Amino acid sequence: MTQKIGAYSFDEYLELVRSFHGYASPGVLIGGFMVDLALRNLPRDILFDALCETNHCLPDAVQILTPCTIGNGWLKIMPFRKFALSLYEKYKGNGVRVYLDTAKLKHWDEIRNWFFKLKPKKEQDTRLLQEQIQTAGAEICSLKKIQILPLHLKKDSLGKRTICPICQEAYPASHGRICRACQGDTPYRKFNRE
Amino acid sequence: MTQKIGAYSFDEYLELVRSFHGYASPGVLIGGFMVDLALRNLPRDILFDALCETNHCLPDAVQILTPCTIGNGWLKIMPFRKFALSLYEKYKGNGVRVYLDTAKLKHWDEIRNWFFKLKPKKEQDTRLLQEQIQTAGAEICSLKKIQILPLHLKKDSLGKRTICPICQEAYPASHGRICRACQGDTPYRKFNRE
Repeated sequence: MTQKIGAYSFDEYLELVRSFHGYASPGVLIGGFMVDLALRNLPRDILFDALCETNHCLPDAVQILTPCTIGNGWLKIMPFRKFALSLYEKYKGNGVRVYLDTAKLKHWDEIRNWFFKLKPKKEQDTRLLQEQIQTAGAEICSLKKIQILPLHLKKDSLGKRTICPICQEAYPASHGRICRACQGDTPYRKFNRE
Repeated sequence: MTQKIGAYSFDEYLELVRSFHGYASPGVLIGGFMVDLALRNLPRDILFDALCETNHCLPDAVQILTPCTIGNGWLKIMPFRKFALSLYEKYKGNGVRVYLDTAKLKHWDEIRNWFFKLKPKKEQDTRLLQEQIQTAGAEICSLKKIQILPLHLKKDSLGKRTICPICQEAYPASHGRICRACQGDTPYRKFNRE
């Protein structure tokens, strides 16, 4: 049986994944079936937001298949590192959560090997893994209805910008008297001559 | 003068932004010129990663114009809410940072109005704003060489997955004896019948 992912055939989705994500990663392929399952269980014609419970792979499936992106704020990420995503009505927060259900991996040994890292990467059979992902489709996932807590529905507003007296750059005034980078969180090495 | 953004004309980039981001947001348009300026100042033929200092708008410019996405891990976001991004050599961390330089906004009043929210959104002149963004191009930005600290160059590895004894779902064993969602950070309302 040929599986559809959103409006795409599996091969079309594969091409989109290669183009956006760089390579046909197992996580984004499974993620495609997860997003598709979630979409099919949302009411039609609603405005929805997305939540990924990991920054690995899944956000790209959401960004390829839905209008939700990191930069437009309709996709949020929580750092649970769980292979799960939710789509929900933007204002009320009612929706569905889809997760890779490891209890359903019994008959999909290569997916299980990959997901639990039971084999070193070199010994994994990439072709078999992709075949199992394509054949399994959303069968390895489970879906639950969810309700997002009001706190997490709040619009992520910047507020007023002001100029940091240390670096002279703009930052949200709500962050304090100096910007967060100057508060010590900078990822950059300080150069002596600056 | 017609500005180029990566391989695209301004109008082509505008279409890509509408398609990916949903609308022609000023932040993603300026972000396009910022990414373009950064790319032109990186050595050719290197593998590079990207860092955005805000989750607003800029990550989408990076995801449209470079191979770096959230899901493949080549794009990272730091929560400084500063309108700045860096591209840097993946392993050594040397690269460039581009930021919107507010000292250069003197002659671009509508960009300044938008960036500092000096006018209510309804009173902003969207067409003039877009014209100023297109004409200014990277002129409103500054560029500095940067060196990413070794800590931030580390590969973001998942480690082994295990099953959470509370929710029965997979999570990284390194997070502790139960998963982070069950540790209390869940964004979902608990249903009585579960």
